[in-house]
Amino acid sequence: MIKFSSRMNLLKGSAIRELLALANKPEVLSFAGGMPAPELFPVDKIKAATDAVLEEQGRVALQYSSTNGFEHFRQQIADRMEAKLNIKTSADNILVTSGSQQGLDYSARVFCDKGDVIIIESPSYLGALNAFKACEPNFVAIPTDGDGMIMEELEKVLATTENVKMIYVIPDFQNPSGRTWPLERRKQFMEIVNKYEVPVVEDNPYGELRFEGEYLPALKSMDTKGLVVFLGTFSKILAPGYRLGWVCADGEILQKYNFLAQAASLQSSTEAQLVVSKFIDMYDLDEHVAAIKECYRKRRDVMIETMEKEFPPEAKFTHPNGGLFTWVELPEYINTNEMAKQCLARNVAYVPGDGFFPDAGHNNCIRLNYSCMPEEKIVQGMTILGEVIKENIKK
Amino acid sequence: MIKFSSRMNLLKGSAIRELLALANKPEVLSFAGGMPAPELFPVDKIKAATDAVLEEQGRVALQYSSTNGFEHFRQQIADRMEAKLNIKTSADNILVTSGSQQGLDYSARVFCDKGDVIIIESPSYLGALNAFKACEPNFVAIPTDGDGMIMEELEKVLATTENVKMIYVIPDFQNPSGRTWPLERRKQFMEIVNKYEVPVVEDNPYGELRFEGEYLPALKSMDTKGLVVFLGTFSKILAPGYRLGWVCADGEILQKYNFLAQAASLQSSTEAQLVVSKFIDMYDLDEHVAAIKECYRKRRDVMIETMEKEFPPEAKFTHPNGGLFTWVELPEYINTNEMAKQCLARNVAYVPGDGFFPDAGHNNCIRLNYSCMPEEKIVQGMTILGEVIKENIKK
Repeated sequence: MIKFSSRMNLLKGSAIRELLALANKPEVLSFAGGMPAPELFPVDKIKAATDAVLEEQGRVALQYSSTNGFEHFRQQIADRMEAKLNIKTSADNILVTSGSQQGLDYSARVFCDKGDVIIIESPSYLGALNAFKACEPNFVAIPTDGDGMIMEELEKVLATTENVKMIYVIPDFQNPSGRTWPLERRKQFMEIVNKYEVPVVEDNPYGELRFEGEYLPALKSMDTKGLVVFLGTFSKILAPGYRLGWVCADGEILQKYNFLAQAASLQSSTEAQLVVSKFIDMYDLDEHVAAIKECYRKRRDVMIETMEKEFPPEAKFTHPNGGLFTWVELPEYINTNEMAKQCLARNVAYVPGDGFFPDAGHNNCIRLNYSCMPEEKIVQGMTILGEVIKENIKK
Repeated sequence: MIKFSSRMNLLKGSAIRELLALANKPEVLSFAGGMPAPELFPVDKIKAATDAVLEEQGRVALQYSSTNGFEHFRQQIADRMEAKLNIKTSADNILVTSGSQQGLDYSARVFCDKGDVIIIESPSYLGALNAFKACEPNFVAIPTDGDGMIMEELEKVLATTENVKMIYVIPDFQNPSGRTWPLERRKQFMEIVNKYEVPVVEDNPYGELRFEGEYLPALKSMDTKGLVVFLGTFSKILAPGYRLGWVCADGEILQKYNFLAQAASLQSSTEAQLVVSKFIDMYDLDEHVAAIKECYRKRRDVMIETMEKEFPPEAKFTHPNGGLFTWVELPEYINTNEMAKQCLARNVAYVPGDGFFPDAGHNNCIRLNYSCMPEEKIVQGMTILGEVIKENIKK
């Protein structure tokens, strides 16, 4: 009888991944994943960059390299963070990770022992909750409104809770809600965080994908005490297949991440780093991001317009200004896990919302992704989803 | 004042990595790393395989994919394990990892809570000890002789120790010692393991790199109770830059690894999996491995011959039949950490042996790598090392 570690009691297959397996048939209109539009991948340019890397420095690309990542690549990341998010940092403050999921895993392991408290938004990213569970923390979920985390509730919790080791937030185009914190709330947040001196993990996979309105400063750009750990990724602005993300943090915190990275994985792919670095040198990543934004903006518009037309008034949904997701709240008597089966029978897939909360309940929500389906399929899918929701509304 | 998790008190920079940073100057003859010979990397073939992948399925290569890995790639791995190591398994029993270092990290996390016991060989792979430390286990190191782990000692420990959750071994061309367990010892080991029903992690990065003599069966090939977790990697038979390894395990054990992989990293690089898979389809990996073995065998010969000629009789060293390393034991009064500085002053680098033991002491050993230096530099380096050792021998 083999005994597993106690953390393994908490880790199950992710609802999203299981649903995606079912939704993986070509006839299914899937709004379940969080995948970028593959037709936008700059395959030819990636190929040219790869050829250049393998021709110019093939033996370097295929060999081991340093734990923190190539210096030139880290410098490109630091430069981009300054240009796009006004975060003044340097290559020395960057650790390249194998996707920002690895950054999430490292974050909990750097800060949290079993039973320590991690503060999250309610709802929060399912994949982060799953990563953090491997450290067996206690989650405290802070209520949110249309503008994100409610700061009075956060301060109450910080004032009364012991062993808070980390606050995890996604202030820009949150997964799953699509919501963005306004400037005032960011300022309030940093005041509270500075008062209590708790490390913050700012997960920012979608920040560059703003469709309209002004860019808001990242929390890291307002971080005067070195408390904020910023997680970035190339998954949404270039391609997720390379598994390349990064951690940006200060001094001792980044040193701890580096020590853990050395123990847990040695390094991220040498080849992938050089290829993405070369792509950035050879081409205009901004131009590519602009094309992504244009495409996703239209898809968001089509999704919201169709939902407004086809969904019953009982269904409330967010209007994201960027990112990949919108979030639907239905009357509490509707169980979206049950409804997912009805939808799948009509070849429409979504992710039920309950997985985005650490506690039970919350069965009346849905996360919808609009980045990965062409506009006509969004219309079809939202029309069918609207029909199914109407069938579930009590008269 | 930021509080880190208690595991972070145990994780420091690795001695090897710090030394490699110093040894990274072109004038240094470094026997410190564990790097494959970069001049053998099949860069042109890798480029052709990459071009084919990006031309034929570029959008797949750049997208997210499944946690366990591509089925065709897992089948290729399973086929190779059967052909090379007589391990009968299937694609369903494989999880692709980002290097086998990630497999080590996952292993401790799947089986061990803080304070649980991990049994290891003495000495054992430094990188594994470092990975395991993130789970804060207690290590029990079993003494070894020229044939590897001493089975009577293992049985004594298992009979008297509580909470043993995992036994970690490298039976083939061990890192750091270069030693290989003979068949009889493997059989004894499996008998003991079956009696106590403890999970075994068999780390096998070098098994295919046998220079002479008969291949010995992997522990996994003798595993009748599904207790052995086999860790494999493409780092030493193709290229480490892609960070591609795998876990082969049975039933519930592999399921737990998959759950953890989903939480900790989502998946390994889609692109890297497809490129290595295509390489195996397009070319003869066996032919490439044969070239590696031929090169490393000559380098091993030159290293051993020069050591026999230039080292004083007080220096004892192993004669590996494969793999990348030999292990030197000096008189106990010599501190190889101190001696490393004397060597570096003469532009020769090695890894001091104490890092390969979980407890203090063991300051009189050296790990030497022969895979990454051309023959004439091995002669030069071993001659200088011999001089330094002689200077440290008490008359």
